[in-house]
Amino acid sequence: MDRVIVIGCGFAGLHAVRQLAGAPVEVTLVDQHNFHTFQPLLYQVATAGLEPGDVAYPARTIIRRKRNIAFRHGRVEAVDLEARAVRLGDGGILDYDHLIVGTGATAGFFDIEGAAAHAHPLYTLDDANHLRNLVLTRLEEVDAHNRSGGPGRLLVVGGGATGVETAGALVELLQVCVRYDRMRLDASRVEVVLIDAAERLLVGFAEELGLYAAETLRSRGVVVRVGTSVEKVTDRGVRLAGGEHLDALVVVWAGGVTVEGTLAGSLAVAHGRGGRVVVGADLSLAGHPEVFVVGDAAAVPAGPGAPAVVPQLAQVAIQSGRHAGRQVLRRMAGRPTEPFAYEDKGMMATIGRRAAVAQLPGGLVLRGTLGWLAWLGLHLVYLIGFRNRLIVLVNWWWRYLNWPGGPRLIDTAASGDLAGAEATGKDGRG
Amino acid sequence: MDRVIVIGCGFAGLHAVRQLAGAPVEVTLVDQHNFHTFQPLLYQVATAGLEPGDVAYPARTIIRRKRNIAFRHGRVEAVDLEARAVRLGDGGILDYDHLIVGTGATAGFFDIEGAAAHAHPLYTLDDANHLRNLVLTRLEEVDAHNRSGGPGRLLVVGGGATGVETAGALVELLQVCVRYDRMRLDASRVEVVLIDAAERLLVGFAEELGLYAAETLRSRGVVVRVGTSVEKVTDRGVRLAGGEHLDALVVVWAGGVTVEGTLAGSLAVAHGRGGRVVVGADLSLAGHPEVFVVGDAAAVPAGPGAPAVVPQLAQVAIQSGRHAGRQVLRRMAGRPTEPFAYEDKGMMATIGRRAAVAQLPGGLVLRGTLGWLAWLGLHLVYLIGFRNRLIVLVNWWWRYLNWPGGPRLIDTAASGDLAGAEATGKDGRG
Repeated sequence: MDRVIVIGCGFAGLHAVRQLAGAPVEVTLVDQHNFHTFQPLLYQVATAGLEPGDVAYPARTIIRRKRNIAFRHGRVEAVDLEARAVRLGDGGILDYDHLIVGTGATAGFFDIEGAAAHAHPLYTLDDANHLRNLVLTRLEEVDAHNRSGGPGRLLVVGGGATGVETAGALVELLQVCVRYDRMRLDASRVEVVLIDAAERLLVGFAEELGLYAAETLRSRGVVVRVGTSVEKVTDRGVRLAGGEHLDALVVVWAGGVTVEGTLAGSLAVAHGRGGRVVVGADLSLAGHPEVFVVGDAAAVPAGPGAPAVVPQLAQVAIQSGRHAGRQVLRRMAGRPTEPFAYEDKGMMATIGRRAAVAQLPGGLVLRGTLGWLAWLGLHLVYLIGFRNRLIVLVNWWWRYLNWPGGPRLIDTAASGDLAGAEATGKDGRG
Repeated sequence: MDRVIVIGCGFAGLHAVRQLAGAPVEVTLVDQHNFHTFQPLLYQVATAGLEPGDVAYPARTIIRRKRNIAFRHGRVEAVDLEARAVRLGDGGILDYDHLIVGTGATAGFFDIEGAAAHAHPLYTLDDANHLRNLVLTRLEEVDAHNRSGGPGRLLVVGGGATGVETAGALVELLQVCVRYDRMRLDASRVEVVLIDAAERLLVGFAEELGLYAAETLRSRGVVVRVGTSVEKVTDRGVRLAGGEHLDALVVVWAGGVTVEGTLAGSLAVAHGRGGRVVVGADLSLAGHPEVFVVGDAAAVPAGPGAPAVVPQLAQVAIQSGRHAGRQVLRRMAGRPTEPFAYEDKGMMATIGRRAAVAQLPGGLVLRGTLGWLAWLGLHLVYLIGFRNRLIVLVNWWWRYLNWPGGPRLIDTAASGDLAGAEATGKDGRG
């Protein structure tokens, strides 16, 4: 029976595996983590709105009833494309007939001095846990010590969806801490600052949505600084282009991702912008029709005749993973593979309670409460696919709508050295 | 207004604070963690039955409506009994008129060679998280590698309530991993071993309950070895008195606790067995009527005329904390303090699903399903005191009764160096 290895238990890998369930193939799903992470809600974990377990789900539970799928916990060190084998960090070697690589990306610091050492990304569950512990610890310190001088800053670098969502959630966290937890964190003590080099927020969205996001964030107390580049990150804050220095309690890095440094980035094949692996129309590697690269790791083409590459979105990961799974089945059946065609389902970003933006296919846009309800509904539907319906319905809505109930626990072990950078789990190696 | 400092947010500290809520005193609750831990269920976190957030609750949320109680996040370095001041690790100094010390205990290794370095205790939330990550990682390793030779052991040292509960829960975790997660962990590959130096389990309970616990654990697959002393712990397992060596995947330390090394243990006052602080009949320090030591940290007298010291139980912590809070109020009112009298409410230990033992006041004992239902009900009632009723009712019962839904996530950041010992959060310093 043909052996298929799927590396990475993210959206791409999981949707590939689903296509292969029940087929006459022996599938091994490999990941260095034993769980799938629902990345779109990681910012909620980082801002103490959700618990880690709300956005992570055990890989083995997901594949429980898919008898031809096995899970292998381990970190993939290398792929030998010629020998058709995957080497794991613990010495294990897995041979394959077909390979699907969905190892994602990792935080991209774009060679900005000090960013890798002092800024805190938000791409993995570890990142989110770490950031939550760091933010809560810094807020406790501000509460405990009467600092003189200006306010401490929670600085978010990057005005894309992740940055906007994080800044919006941080300002809500501050409100919870002040109103419910009686912490002394008024505006003279702490402020949330969102910085982006572009001239507006949410560059990938329609202009009116970017302007709406900035206006809404400002009305909620966020200092939004667009057209502002960060030149350097230190342990005390950032230096902006022009020389201005901004002290910060925490620097959150929402500045983008790269495939460089990940397993896919290390493959000896062609790489495009951000290290994304160049794939053919059917998402396979040139010269290796048995290997597919999907999701954030790949420069996924928009579709036949469309030379453009689509952005690194959850929907792209889902659709490309599903496509790769189908192509493996076609190859086994001796049929030619099909080209991938991305079906645009739109994009969303939430700004906070009762405020979100949604860009739907065909140019339709939603914002405000309507956008927010659409966002809530969509995420709930997607989460339900993975988790128990009852738990999600009660727990998730409850936690999300009922602010003060959030898990504002500072996890000492996970926080490690709060002053330093974190070394683990950032590179997306399956 | 009189200033009261309560160090430690465990059962003792919280119940002291509750007595002082609304009184004309200014209370500061100090803890190095920003949450209360429901310790009796920590073994469930360690065995992936509950999430950390299920057994921990933010300190600020607990005192939200108690306007005269402030929370101070910080680690207490020292108490200056003469100057009536508490010094914090971050340099803060807090003066007090009354002090209540409820800093708990820490794992006691009783000078057994290698135990502190290689065995994993289960006293704090960090301990439980760490242990869960370690156990799940070791099981994944057993699943991935076809070991030859005998089974790997999950070794639990200590046959008291914590050891019995942990061994029982580990064997259930194995069943979940085999039945639901399709892991290859049959009895030839992994076994749970419970070791105690005494001639039976649950020495604090009636003999018939200890025998019932051993018999039930054995019927569920646990290897129970009583009358067996551990002489040395290594990174590979343990050496028993007599020279026998037992290899182990993990050594869980449920061998008892000590106050030595904690803040209370470092006070320049008289200490009893296990470093517990010797207190007067009213739980105050000799020569310092304004200082009370409560809970696990104190050698709590059973009552007037009863020279015996009561064991380190949650009920003792609750009752002694409450008592100390009341005595502060009496002292402020110029009234004499009262002696503490422990009201025995019994003890319980669960062995697993549909099996628990309960020793009630007056010699009554419960066991089996009846004991288990009593245990479930009692813990639910206590948890409800801290957490939202709806969440607890749905979530906790759901997770507990519905095995495969448990949070079997390996948290990379929290696990740190899985091969080594953990350095943080074990010493209970408020």
